[in-house]
Amino acid sequence: MAAKPADDDRMKTLVSLCKRRGFVFQSSEIYGGLKSAYDYGPLGIELKRNLMEEWWRAMVHSRDDVVGLDASIVMHTDVWKASGHLAGFRDPLVDCLVCKERFRADKAPKLGEEEDAPMEFADKGRAKAALAAMLERGVELTRRKKTLFGAKGNERGYVCPQCGSPYLSEERAFNLMFRSSIGPVDPLGEVAAFIEGGELPSGAELRTKLEEIIGNTAVYLRPETAQAMFVQFQNIQQTMSMKLPFGIAQMGKSFRNEITTEHFTFRSCEFEQMEMEFFCEPGTDDQWMEYWTQQRMDWWRQFLNHPENLRLRPHEKEELAHYARACSDLEYLYPWGWDELEGVANRTDYDLKRHQEASGVKLSYFDPNQTDPETGKNGYRFVPFVIEPAAGATRGMLMYLLDAYHEEEAPTAKGGMETRVVLKLHPRLAPYKCAVLPLVKKNGMPDLAREIVAELQQQGINSRMDMQHAIGRRYRRHDEAGTPYCITVDGQTLEDQTVTIRDRDTMEQERVAIVDVAGLVRERVWG
Amino acid sequence: MAAKPADDDRMKTLVSLCKRRGFVFQSSEIYGGLKSAYDYGPLGIELKRNLMEEWWRAMVHSRDDVVGLDASIVMHTDVWKASGHLAGFRDPLVDCLVCKERFRADKAPKLGEEEDAPMEFADKGRAKAALAAMLERGVELTRRKKTLFGAKGNERGYVCPQCGSPYLSEERAFNLMFRSSIGPVDPLGEVAAFIEGGELPSGAELRTKLEEIIGNTAVYLRPETAQAMFVQFQNIQQTMSMKLPFGIAQMGKSFRNEITTEHFTFRSCEFEQMEMEFFCEPGTDDQWMEYWTQQRMDWWRQFLNHPENLRLRPHEKEELAHYARACSDLEYLYPWGWDELEGVANRTDYDLKRHQEASGVKLSYFDPNQTDPETGKNGYRFVPFVIEPAAGATRGMLMYLLDAYHEEEAPTAKGGMETRVVLKLHPRLAPYKCAVLPLVKKNGMPDLAREIVAELQQQGINSRMDMQHAIGRRYRRHDEAGTPYCITVDGQTLEDQTVTIRDRDTMEQERVAIVDVAGLVRERVWG
Repeated sequence: MAAKPADDDRMKTLVSLCKRRGFVFQSSEIYGGLKSAYDYGPLGIELKRNLMEEWWRAMVHSRDDVVGLDASIVMHTDVWKASGHLAGFRDPLVDCLVCKERFRADKAPKLGEEEDAPMEFADKGRAKAALAAMLERGVELTRRKKTLFGAKGNERGYVCPQCGSPYLSEERAFNLMFRSSIGPVDPLGEVAAFIEGGELPSGAELRTKLEEIIGNTAVYLRPETAQAMFVQFQNIQQTMSMKLPFGIAQMGKSFRNEITTEHFTFRSCEFEQMEMEFFCEPGTDDQWMEYWTQQRMDWWRQFLNHPENLRLRPHEKEELAHYARACSDLEYLYPWGWDELEGVANRTDYDLKRHQEASGVKLSYFDPNQTDPETGKNGYRFVPFVIEPAAGATRGMLMYLLDAYHEEEAPTAKGGMETRVVLKLHPRLAPYKCAVLPLVKKNGMPDLAREIVAELQQQGINSRMDMQHAIGRRYRRHDEAGTPYCITVDGQTLEDQTVTIRDRDTMEQERVAIVDVAGLVRERVWG
Repeated sequence: MAAKPADDDRMKTLVSLCKRRGFVFQSSEIYGGLKSAYDYGPLGIELKRNLMEEWWRAMVHSRDDVVGLDASIVMHTDVWKASGHLAGFRDPLVDCLVCKERFRADKAPKLGEEEDAPMEFADKGRAKAALAAMLERGVELTRRKKTLFGAKGNERGYVCPQCGSPYLSEERAFNLMFRSSIGPVDPLGEVAAFIEGGELPSGAELRTKLEEIIGNTAVYLRPETAQAMFVQFQNIQQTMSMKLPFGIAQMGKSFRNEITTEHFTFRSCEFEQMEMEFFCEPGTDDQWMEYWTQQRMDWWRQFLNHPENLRLRPHEKEELAHYARACSDLEYLYPWGWDELEGVANRTDYDLKRHQEASGVKLSYFDPNQTDPETGKNGYRFVPFVIEPAAGATRGMLMYLLDAYHEEEAPTAKGGMETRVVLKLHPRLAPYKCAVLPLVKKNGMPDLAREIVAELQQQGINSRMDMQHAIGRRYRRHDEAGTPYCITVDGQTLEDQTVTIRDRDTMEQERVAIVDVAGLVRERVWG
């Protein structure tokens, strides 16, 4: 869906705030930036950590039936063969034969067979050149200014997103996994040595050799964290004596060589996931699917200002991945429309069976208390079904930033009005819980403020001292940073050991004793 | 240093415990394992998280002068050009011309010029073949059984670690960084297309083309987290209004294509770091170097049972990296000898200046309150010096596991004696703080235990219920898991709402009221 101008603006405003306040920077920015990779700055890392901590607490620490895992990013290549990623994890790519644009076939503008396909170019010169080039290929078109007419849509059903041409190369598969090589041999060096080593072989021989050299050492960066939970299923079930149903949870980075990166951190090549595989007995999977879908909706909603912007969309049958029996997307209303935040899928026993087959290692569960339905004997061994709530941590962070961004008219210190930008992040997610502000840089106020900060930090309440600029500007800065409480040390503090606490959202201030500050903040943030 | 047999045993025992109790598994184990990559299981992830949380709390959350960063693992290639990693981050590799072993020159057995270099093979057949092959090269040797005599050490000063041969290929540089490629073009496909596309070019042309194709899309996995702090120095200094001296801290994975992986997780291709770059004014660097060295020693030691096994070793001048003015290693006495845990280095202004030069972006600091010593005017702009405490998180975890491992004789339930294995992890690092054990699975004990676990979890005290096997076996299991407190629900609990708390190290039990359990554990763990 094309974004409306106002929605474009919403994203631009947020990107700008993220950079200004130290939430998100472009990776390697001083070198012109790396396409679609992002660095999380001092506030961003705290927000992301808080979000992921909350997930871990909800999914692992507060449950006896889920344990954690932190697997390596580089896994054995056989994992990706068995999972189907090496063969199937590909995008269909196409080149336009006219303007040379390379694009994803499944994202291209649709155009039916025999429909008119006008082709438009940047200027008359380019249109003329294209006209001539097509004539050489035996295609006669007509030109008016910078547009060529006469082409028609064909059986492919889509055209070039750049010029509108239906003259396209074959689709070719492109693997979305990042490939590298491991071990003491650099395939580039080996290929070069082979080429220079003797008589030049034929093209076909060279290609075979090339694939052999690269294949010998190839490893891939994981495109999802999920597979590790299947591969380590047995180790974890046995060492932790887990009884079905139980889950394995993992958070961490995954990598996809995305062709179309878009919407800031929404779709990037390096991203962070929070995934859980919940293993259960076949036949109970529908009920667990329902349970986890509801759990996940409730979990995300508790931190949203506008929970109505999160919805559940069960997949149509045609949409389902080949391994899934059911899937529901948790979708958020981003500025560009409803789009994915998390997917909850019933993956059946597909993955465990694939890895069992490929590795020759039994990945099943034995229940001594059940009767085998086939043999009628005591003890039943079976391959569990899996319900997978798979969320994007970096997407979740983007959602909460969008949800929190708020502008309103507020009075200035001088009695006028100004636009106040406030990031209404849930206090548990907010990077800093408190900013401690000495009203002036004298009369011992900074020292007192420092003591208060130290006490808060000591109690695990992430807080920050800020002495720079007038108090009004400091309040605005911490509104933008999403800091829920500003604690001000002023003249009266020196007399009666009280401070003011200002609420980020209401801007109301109350006066409390210094000794009560930590308890009060703790109560309001964590309840 | 070669490990003594007893020390080999210590490592084997630990590796076995790690697998048995779910601390560390080999990556992709069911597929035969991936060389030198490890998965952190349910207990391992909790231990690693606790360790890294403690670091973050000490380095970031309890300090006003340090902020965090979480940069992407894949950075712009120009970062590695400027940092010197792309050119310099290489190991010298050599092939043995006799037995074909490939090895690291700097790790090979030393042998002086003209010293005898007997070459030994697995069997007589191999020795005969080698004799003949050397004769063909014009080298006459003599054979006795499976050993060849007559070779002498040469100016290289080392021999093949496999057969002892001094006949070696040239050393060749090998980049330790993992290379991948980004964008919609797979270089393998491009090279193949080029080869098949027309007349076969010469070897030299082909090689040039190969390097061009790969160079166009090459990206590297970071070999250290440090560079991101330099590259984002200005963004962070400005958005957070940081005043010198201040630091930027980062934790995360780094990747090195190590030839020699060894000692379990000590040297692996994928590992986790905790690094901080502390920017300070030139001239104050020596004092900060001393400060941070001491801080880091104190920090590690607080969690060690045997702090005497951690020492500080200042580098000799010859040992210093070209960018460092001083460096001190924090070394631990591993089973194979003293080896690195963390390095604290004075990196001077080397890195900021390199990136400033390469990017054309000013990476300096302006102090309006100082006088420029050259111009005598108000305001002084300079490139800060950097003190870097760079620690291995996965190494730290290995150290604490080694330090905690303890065997002792202990009485069995039946009145005999047995060997008790206990992991004396510092309670703050221990994966679970409490195991809650219903004595039997009836009389409502499991329900009561479940309530206690829920209350502990609610209060952020990671705890686990365990009902499996006799109580004595459960105690032993949690001794091995390093759980400091076992809380047992027994018959008396039902009468007076008290439980026993058993101390992991002393095995002493005391009876306390259920309502006091959480407070007591919190007090003992966090003080």
